[in-house]
Amino acid sequence: MGQQKKNYDQHDIETIRHSAAHIMAQAILRIFSGKGDKIQLGIGPTIENGFYYDIDMNHRLSEEDFARIESEMQAIIKSDLPIERKVLSRSEAIQFFSGQGQELKVELIAGLPEGEEIGCYVQGEFHDLCRGPHVERTSHVPMHFKLLSVAGAYWRGREDQKMLQRVYATCFKKEQELKDYLHFIEDAKNRDHRKLGKELDLFLFDPHAPGSPFFMPKGVVVYNELMNFIRRLYHRFNYQEVITPQVLDAELWKTSGHYANFHDDMFFTNIEEREFALKPMNCPAAMVMFKHFKFSYRELPLRFADFGRLHRYEKSGTLAGLTRVRTFIQDDAHIFLALSDIQREISDLIEMFFMCYRHFKFTDVKVNLSTRPEKRMGEERSWDIAEEALREALAANKCEYKVNEGDGAFYGPKIDFRVADALKREHQLGTIQLDFQLPERFDLKFVNPKGEMERPVVIHRALLGSIERFFGIYLEHIAGAFPFWIAPEQVVIVPVKNDSEAQIAYADELHAELKHKGFRSRVDARNESMNLKTRQVQTAKVPYMLVVGDREVEKGEVSARRYGEKSSKTLSKTELMELFSTLSEEKNP
Amino acid sequence: MGQQKKNYDQHDIETIRHSAAHIMAQAILRIFSGKGDKIQLGIGPTIENGFYYDIDMNHRLSEEDFARIESEMQAIIKSDLPIERKVLSRSEAIQFFSGQGQELKVELIAGLPEGEEIGCYVQGEFHDLCRGPHVERTSHVPMHFKLLSVAGAYWRGREDQKMLQRVYATCFKKEQELKDYLHFIEDAKNRDHRKLGKELDLFLFDPHAPGSPFFMPKGVVVYNELMNFIRRLYHRFNYQEVITPQVLDAELWKTSGHYANFHDDMFFTNIEEREFALKPMNCPAAMVMFKHFKFSYRELPLRFADFGRLHRYEKSGTLAGLTRVRTFIQDDAHIFLALSDIQREISDLIEMFFMCYRHFKFTDVKVNLSTRPEKRMGEERSWDIAEEALREALAANKCEYKVNEGDGAFYGPKIDFRVADALKREHQLGTIQLDFQLPERFDLKFVNPKGEMERPVVIHRALLGSIERFFGIYLEHIAGAFPFWIAPEQVVIVPVKNDSEAQIAYADELHAELKHKGFRSRVDARNESMNLKTRQVQTAKVPYMLVVGDREVEKGEVSARRYGEKSSKTLSKTELMELFSTLSEEKNP
Repeated sequence: MGQQKKNYDQHDIETIRHSAAHIMAQAILRIFSGKGDKIQLGIGPTIENGFYYDIDMNHRLSEEDFARIESEMQAIIKSDLPIERKVLSRSEAIQFFSGQGQELKVELIAGLPEGEEIGCYVQGEFHDLCRGPHVERTSHVPMHFKLLSVAGAYWRGREDQKMLQRVYATCFKKEQELKDYLHFIEDAKNRDHRKLGKELDLFLFDPHAPGSPFFMPKGVVVYNELMNFIRRLYHRFNYQEVITPQVLDAELWKTSGHYANFHDDMFFTNIEEREFALKPMNCPAAMVMFKHFKFSYRELPLRFADFGRLHRYEKSGTLAGLTRVRTFIQDDAHIFLALSDIQREISDLIEMFFMCYRHFKFTDVKVNLSTRPEKRMGEERSWDIAEEALREALAANKCEYKVNEGDGAFYGPKIDFRVADALKREHQLGTIQLDFQLPERFDLKFVNPKGEMERPVVIHRALLGSIERFFGIYLEHIAGAFPFWIAPEQVVIVPVKNDSEAQIAYADELHAELKHKGFRSRVDARNESMNLKTRQVQTAKVPYMLVVGDREVEKGEVSARRYGEKSSKTLSKTELMELFSTLSEEKNP
Repeated sequence: MGQQKKNYDQHDIETIRHSAAHIMAQAILRIFSGKGDKIQLGIGPTIENGFYYDIDMNHRLSEEDFARIESEMQAIIKSDLPIERKVLSRSEAIQFFSGQGQELKVELIAGLPEGEEIGCYVQGEFHDLCRGPHVERTSHVPMHFKLLSVAGAYWRGREDQKMLQRVYATCFKKEQELKDYLHFIEDAKNRDHRKLGKELDLFLFDPHAPGSPFFMPKGVVVYNELMNFIRRLYHRFNYQEVITPQVLDAELWKTSGHYANFHDDMFFTNIEEREFALKPMNCPAAMVMFKHFKFSYRELPLRFADFGRLHRYEKSGTLAGLTRVRTFIQDDAHIFLALSDIQREISDLIEMFFMCYRHFKFTDVKVNLSTRPEKRMGEERSWDIAEEALREALAANKCEYKVNEGDGAFYGPKIDFRVADALKREHQLGTIQLDFQLPERFDLKFVNPKGEMERPVVIHRALLGSIERFFGIYLEHIAGAFPFWIAPEQVVIVPVKNDSEAQIAYADELHAELKHKGFRSRVDARNESMNLKTRQVQTAKVPYMLVVGDREVEKGEVSARRYGEKSSKTLSKTELMELFSTLSEEKNP
């Protein structure tokens, strides 16, 4: 073990995982090709935290096969085969892999540029087309590996090609690292928002509307509380909400540039022989509104927030839970302001963004500044001013950030906010985009202090981004245990005895009082055991369970148990109401 | 005058107005046909509160012509011409009106059934094709008439025909009736929601989205408060809100029957070669959700409320303000319940409906029960049960109602609620519709107390109906003077002196405090006169104006003036906050 450790310490983890991929392919060939199955190998690269191999075979691999494959891999590692690199000419390589029946490899070779050196790695009976590098011997791959899953994957990622079996696996240098990673995967699986969405009755999908969630009543409570929280931020930061149409004339999308740049992602419909599109974003509607008025500099910055429902085309195959959908609402806003006000506005925005993310307990926030891309509109001078204003605002707010050169939108530079969730996975949420183009295209103007007509600048910005996607990310972040203010059910009241009229009457009365105060409460007086009811409240992750027995009825008290805590606390009714009022204060930013 | 009065007392007002229409046409012919204008008459029927005449002529009639026409009408009335009926054969009639150059009349005669007696009325030089009846002499028409407006109208109401000029006018038996009616029209004009919408910055329309309102920030405050009021009713009456997709597979609309019955009113779009429709109603989506679960009778009635945005085609020509739009949100809900629970549920609904309308000060509510129409789906037995349950619930609630035989929906009977507004104009708002058909079509079932699968009944119901349309109706009802709880701006704070730092600081501080408490407040410290500011606050119909001078700053008071009142009241800050808190309590049902 000491010897092995030393050997793989000298290699980086990428090289080790790459070699592990070869060993896995070798093991699969050994086990299954004997049985008349013609196995063809595709590609086997490393990915973040592991590797995979794409394989074409008749036998449908499943988790039941994993132990055998892993044990064969151990055997290959133990047998300490040397891993050797051979260089072949193009024709030699084609001849060799044809002879092995590896036609996918032959296809890959055919795709390589003429004259390129063709590398091949050999370990025992196993040959693979590969650039390398690899470890020197199979024993240099540590035993801390694990097969994870199998999924379908099109050959070369193209839907017109055949479907292969992609076997995912991972490998680490240290046993503890593997354990931690497997624990992480297990945790992520349990937090999967699609799983939690079903378990907690939050949302569902139906084939009649691909990529378009149906939110169940409990999901809508969360959805509306998210929107209302954003509305409270709006009230605080002087935003004004607008409602704009969803179906707008194609001409408008031509003016905005979306028709040319975004056409394939839009849904169209014809009305009275005019072409209309369902809006994929709110921007042009905001421009139209602004243009209806002759605003004065005194009224700027004007902040129009729009919770309009958007529709964008995504291929059926790519749709996934709430994170990849065809319809969503953004908490977006369009800010119209004078060039000279950009820096101050961006400063306010940065404050607002951090306030928002802190509220949802996203404490690890990374900021990126994306600058002018190659394909862009507008004058260089505008780009200079815009990028400079963003840099200065970030500096003034002592905000650390990374620069992504060339990653801006085609109409202006932007600041992105990425948050890390409880499992340290990063998600991009908010964005602040400067736009010099739409005000030009829509010929927007305001009256400046000199009484002249001046072109405003537009800032597009979203805090949570898509509410649907944030819903999914937040659900995983908190593992479905919503804080009191946003929880779909805040409290379940359980009488100790299902047949005690006094207890049930007391529970009902308490419920009515809580409901009247706007709390989301429920009485569970079903003819079931206290154990079952407690378990169900725990599974539903309801923040509070109130147990009422004769003692509580007599004294006007409750025995309150908070989610995640083992013990209960006796509270008077007044104390309970005060507690709940305090907890719901958290709905305010 | 006494003679005249006696003569027109004997006729009903319809006959008088019909004769007034002839006199108006005669007057127009006399004035304009002399000038080489070839005038052709269309039809001239009576309508509610008056009459009109459709006329084809080159001269474009306008209000400037009204006085001359009215004075010629007076002359015709004074000249006391006898009005005589003649009966002509078809060929005689055609010959006569052709000779007069009245080709529209010839067209009308050609459309009459063969062999029908053709009536014609004559007064002096004027002849008109007409069924009658009419008064005997022109002097029997009272002088209490008035031309009201001119509008374009297609001949025979068909867009492929020529556009005529429709002259609207009215006539009453008593002078006071005419005065009252003109006052009513003036009042209605001032309350027109399109006019108020513009004046109060509530909403606008743009050619890029016909029939699709853009709500400005102040309009959105009202819109959201309306929805939130309904949500509070939902909390009270145990409704659950759901969110469902807007774009749904055409197959679903075939299952629901909308594809066959409502196709021309729907917008379609194609995605991956599948036909999808924008939802014109929420019903099928509610059915889909219900079908995903196996509900028990214990969970019924299940009340799914959906504020989904709907899209329905309306011809460009028919679009009008908020009352005739192509997109709107309904406060609708679908209630799933057992057959045996219908009556109790309807009783609760009736209570909820009256509570809702009372809240918006609609005190005159009429209820209609509409029974099975000729074209209908489903078994007679279901119709019997449904109609009976509605009748019994209405009786149990001591609710007076009118029966509209045969006016139900094709899928079930319904109860409609009509309210009279401040001008006593009636509007249909809410509806309760029983539906035995959709549960069949979607094969919905729940587990009944015996453990068997039972078919639920569905109740469709909406309180305000379309939020957009209600917005328009309510705006006219209150003439734009919103009560405190729903007012876009609730309070404007005005310092007496625009250059007093102390007063401005005090105003700002007060504003911050009000804003923090969630009130919609604004400071007006512009360099303008108190008179102008007061006038603007009045025009904007803001419920409260707070004036702060040195005295108020010193004592920590405000001088509060309520909208519609002449005098102000001095309040301490605490009294003010208490007053505003009490006023905003009205947001609760």
